Amino acid sequence: MNEGPLNNLIRMLAGLPGLGNRSGRRVALHLLSKRRTAMLPLAEALRVAAEEVKECNTCGNLDMHDPCTICRDQKRDRSKICVVSGVSDLWAIERTGAFKGLYHVLGGLLSAIDGISPRDLRIDSLVARSDQEGVEEIILALSATVDGQSTAHYIADHLDAASLKITRLAHGVPVGGELDYLDDGTIMTALKSRSAA
Amino acid sequence: MNEGPLNNLIRMLAGLPGLGNRSGRRVALHLLSKRRTAMLPLAEALRVAAEEVKECNTCGNLDMHDPCTICRDQKRDRSKICVVSGVSDLWAIERTGAFKGLYHVLGGLLSAIDGISPRDLRIDSLVARSDQEGVEEIILALSATVDGQSTAHYIADHLDAASLKITRLAHGVPVGGELDYLDDGTIMTALKSRSAA
Repeated sequence: MNEGPLNNLIRMLAGLPGLGNRSGRRVALHLLSKRRTAMLPLAEALRVAAEEVKECNTCGNLDMHDPCTICRDQKRDRSKICVVSGVSDLWAIERTGAFKGLYHVLGGLLSAIDGISPRDLRIDSLVARSDQEGVEEIILALSATVDGQSTAHYIADHLDAASLKITRLAHGVPVGGELDYLDDGTIMTALKSRSAA
Repeated sequence: MNEGPLNNLIRMLAGLPGLGNRSGRRVALHLLSKRRTAMLPLAEALRVAAEEVKECNTCGNLDMHDPCTICRDQKRDRSKICVVSGVSDLWAIERTGAFKGLYHVLGGLLSAIDGISPRDLRIDSLVARSDQEGVEEIILALSATVDGQSTAHYIADHLDAASLKITRLAHGVPVGGELDYLDDGTIMTALKSRSAA
């Protein structure tokens, strides 16, 4: 029914994560109804971001600068490096405002099924960073999944445990979470790690 | 944590229909990981579509041409005009392949709450089209909602009922739908309009 540019746009939108054919069409129609205020600005934002957003060579964060704003910020605690799987996890921790150290983005998790080996991740550079003067603690903020935990083990094995404190996120009941809906493993761990009320 | 272009892009993506902050971030990270193969082509597709996709002055369809491919197609049945609320409904009917006539896109539905009056819709041009020679049937393919049905009534009142056949889509059980999950109104209508098995 439609030719070239419209179908092409819908196909691209439908291929984005979380979208499908129906939402691709919906977004395309929405944008076409606001060409000057939404569609062309989005095209420009994509172009500018593709050109200007860089990966930080130190930590793997995405930023306008390399080294990134976090790595350059002299007010941050350089003795702590928080290891995350991806940039979205870094953002999630930054949103809490609870961590004032540095980050290291692995770029994924070890996975036998997906064929992701240590060479595919930023592990060597983490080991090198951890050997630098002043680094005291490596926080392994990785998912509590099989891949996350095996990656955490692998990294812990390759860090210098004698001179570094290696920690991981606490397991427990999510804040606001109902016990009834939690899995047994989480409840058991939360029980074991219970603290004085 | 991030400056200009990245936050700007995420904000725009998060504002698209069906997306939110989380999916906006997810789409942005996905695109940044495929700048040359997905991000820049999407920017270009948006720009090209914004420039080249036109609204058909006859029926309101979106197309590369004006009049659109459907209006220009001499093989289509010019005696039937199918009235739809928006382009997505036109596409939905085209996908079935069951209709070979012409369309008329209203650009919305009458709505007292949203303040959409007949002047905001393409109703005058529909009345004008329906008076043209050879037009025999107007199919009101509007949603079975209050707004859809009041729009259908309004249009039917303004068409020349003496010279035109005015029809609407059948109500009934959706194909593949379970009776148990259907509302009473649909079951009642489907029962009244029952046909020989």
